[in-house]
Amino acid sequence: MLVALDWGTSNLRAYLMSAEGDVVETRHAARGVLHLPAPADAGGFEQAFAEIARDWLGRHPALPVVAAGMVGSAQGWIEAPYVHAPADVRALAAHGVRVASGLGPEVVIAPGVIFDAPARMPDVMRGEEIKIAGAVAAEPALGERTWFVLPGTHSKWVFVQEERIVSFATYMTGELYAVLREHSILGRLMTESADGGESALGFEAGLDAARASSPGDLSHQLFAARTLGLTGRLPRNALADYLSGLLVGHELVSALAASRATREAGAPLVLLGDAALCRRYARALEAFGAAADEQLDDTAPRGLWEFARAAGLLV
Amino acid sequence: MLVALDWGTSNLRAYLMSAEGDVVETRHAARGVLHLPAPADAGGFEQAFAEIARDWLGRHPALPVVAAGMVGSAQGWIEAPYVHAPADVRALAAHGVRVASGLGPEVVIAPGVIFDAPARMPDVMRGEEIKIAGAVAAEPALGERTWFVLPGTHSKWVFVQEERIVSFATYMTGELYAVLREHSILGRLMTESADGGESALGFEAGLDAARASSPGDLSHQLFAARTLGLTGRLPRNALADYLSGLLVGHELVSALAASRATREAGAPLVLLGDAALCRRYARALEAFGAAADEQLDDTAPRGLWEFARAAGLLV
Repeated sequence: MLVALDWGTSNLRAYLMSAEGDVVETRHAARGVLHLPAPADAGGFEQAFAEIARDWLGRHPALPVVAAGMVGSAQGWIEAPYVHAPADVRALAAHGVRVASGLGPEVVIAPGVIFDAPARMPDVMRGEEIKIAGAVAAEPALGERTWFVLPGTHSKWVFVQEERIVSFATYMTGELYAVLREHSILGRLMTESADGGESALGFEAGLDAARASSPGDLSHQLFAARTLGLTGRLPRNALADYLSGLLVGHELVSALAASRATREAGAPLVLLGDAALCRRYARALEAFGAAADEQLDDTAPRGLWEFARAAGLLV
Repeated sequence: MLVALDWGTSNLRAYLMSAEGDVVETRHAARGVLHLPAPADAGGFEQAFAEIARDWLGRHPALPVVAAGMVGSAQGWIEAPYVHAPADVRALAAHGVRVASGLGPEVVIAPGVIFDAPARMPDVMRGEEIKIAGAVAAEPALGERTWFVLPGTHSKWVFVQEERIVSFATYMTGELYAVLREHSILGRLMTESADGGESALGFEAGLDAARASSPGDLSHQLFAARTLGLTGRLPRNALADYLSGLLVGHELVSALAASRATREAGAPLVLLGDAALCRRYARALEAFGAAADEQLDDTAPRGLWEFARAAGLLV
C-alpha cells in the first residue's frame, strides 16, 4: 500500500493505493505550492500533508509516501533537481529526494526532467514525467515510440522511445491565453464564451488564422482578437475562442512539423490530461489533419505507484 | 495660431503653435484617456483640457483647438469613427468630430484609420495617422512611397503612397512584453536589465532565436526566457532583453517579409517615434540586414497643424 501525492502549482491530490496499484481512496485540497499559508518554509507543506493524510498514516504508520510535481521545485517542499533526458521511471526513482513528513515516514519526491541538448533551447518538465510513466505502465505498447501531448498552462509535446522520455518541447499556450485575456487590451471586448455555435465559429477562425500564418505573424494576428470584434466580423462572445484557437493552432503548426518525421514513421499521437481540454485539442488536431490516436485521462496515480515500485518502496 | 493636443492612453501633450506651424510652447500632463478622474463622462476631459490650456485660451479666446489619439476612441471624449484606408490628411480633416470644450472654442478631434480589406485581418490605428501626416509634411519626399515603422505598445508598420495611408499592420510587441514580464511565470527569474554587455547579449540571443524560428514557434521560444535562466545559459539580468529581442525579432520576421517587394522596389524604411525605442529597432533591423533609412522623432505637432489646416481652421 502507498500514499501517492500529485502536488502541483494550484492543487494537491492524494491517493491511497493498494499493493496492486489500484486507487482505494482519493482526496483533493486547494493546497498547491502557490496556495500554501507559508510557502517559504517546510511547515506549510507538513501541515497540508498532515491535513490530507493523517488518518491514513494513523491506520498504517509505515505506509510509504511519494510525491511529484511542483512540490519538488525550488519553490516546493524540498528541491529535487532535474534528471537529464533520456530518462525513464527508473532514472526518476534513482534521483528521488527524501524529506521528513512530520508524520512518521519520509516523503520521497520525484525529480523533474530537463532536456538540454546543444543547438536546441533547453526545456524542463515537472509532474508530466510521472503522468507519462503512468500511461506507459497502463499501456505498455505506448512505451515503444509515442508522441504524448499534455495540453495546459504549459503544454508539453513529449517524445517517448523505449519507455524513456527522449525529447520534449513546452508551449506557453494556456498561460498566454490567461494573461492576454486578463491583462491585455484583448480582454476588453471579450464577453463570456458562448456555449454553442459562436464558440465553435471563433475557435475555427483562430485555427484557420494559425494555419494560414507566415513566420512571426502571431503578435499581429493576436490583435485580430480585438479588430474582428470592432468590425463585427466575429461576435464578441466568440472572441475568447478565437484567441484560444489562434494560440492552440500556432502550437499545432510548430509541434506537428517538429513531430512529422517520427509520426510518419509510425509513432502514434496520444492526448494525455484533463478530458475537456483534450477534446478541444482533439478537434484542433482533426482540423489540422492529424487526428489523435488515443486520449488518456489522469494517469498520475499509476505513475506515482510505478515510481514508488522503482524506488524499492513497495517490497 | 493653434492649440494642438496629442491625447493618448497614458499622456496628454499640448502644443501652442504659430501660424507657420512652429511649436511656441509645450505642456505635458499624466492625463491620458485611462488616467482621468471620470473617464466615463465628458467632464473629466473638459477639466483636463482646462487645466492644461485655460491661460492660452484666456489670452487668445478664438484659438482653434485640434486633438488626436485615443481621445477620439469609444472610451474618449467623443467618438470620431475610423476613416477607411487609403486615407490622407484631407480625408482625416473631412471626418473630424467637434466637441464643446467648455472654454469657448470647440475641439476638433481627428478620426483614426481602419484597414479592412477582404482576405486580410482588419486593423486599426488612432494617433499614428497624425504622426505620419507630420512626417510627410516635414519631408515631402516620404509621401511618395514609404514604409513607416512606429514601434511601441502596439507597433505599426504603415505603407504610405501618394501621401495616403494605403495599408498597415499592428504587432502587439510592446504589450506582450509588458504582460509577460509582469503577469507570467517568465517575470519570476528576471532581474533588472543590465546596462551593458548582458543586455546586448540577451537582446541578440532573442533576435537570433526569432530569425531561426519555424512557423508557430513563438509560444515555445518564449519559455526559453525561463529555461535559459534556469540552466545558466543566459545571466538573469539578460532575460528581459532576451524576451524583448525575441518579440521584436518575430515582428521583424513577419513585417520584413510582408514589406519586401515594395522595399526592394525602392520604398525606404523610416522609424518614427520615441528615440530610444527607435534605436533599439534600428539595431534589430541592422541585425536582420534591413537597416532603416531614416529615424524621425515626434512628428505629432506638425501632423496636428496639417490636420487643422486641412480642416480649414487656420484661415
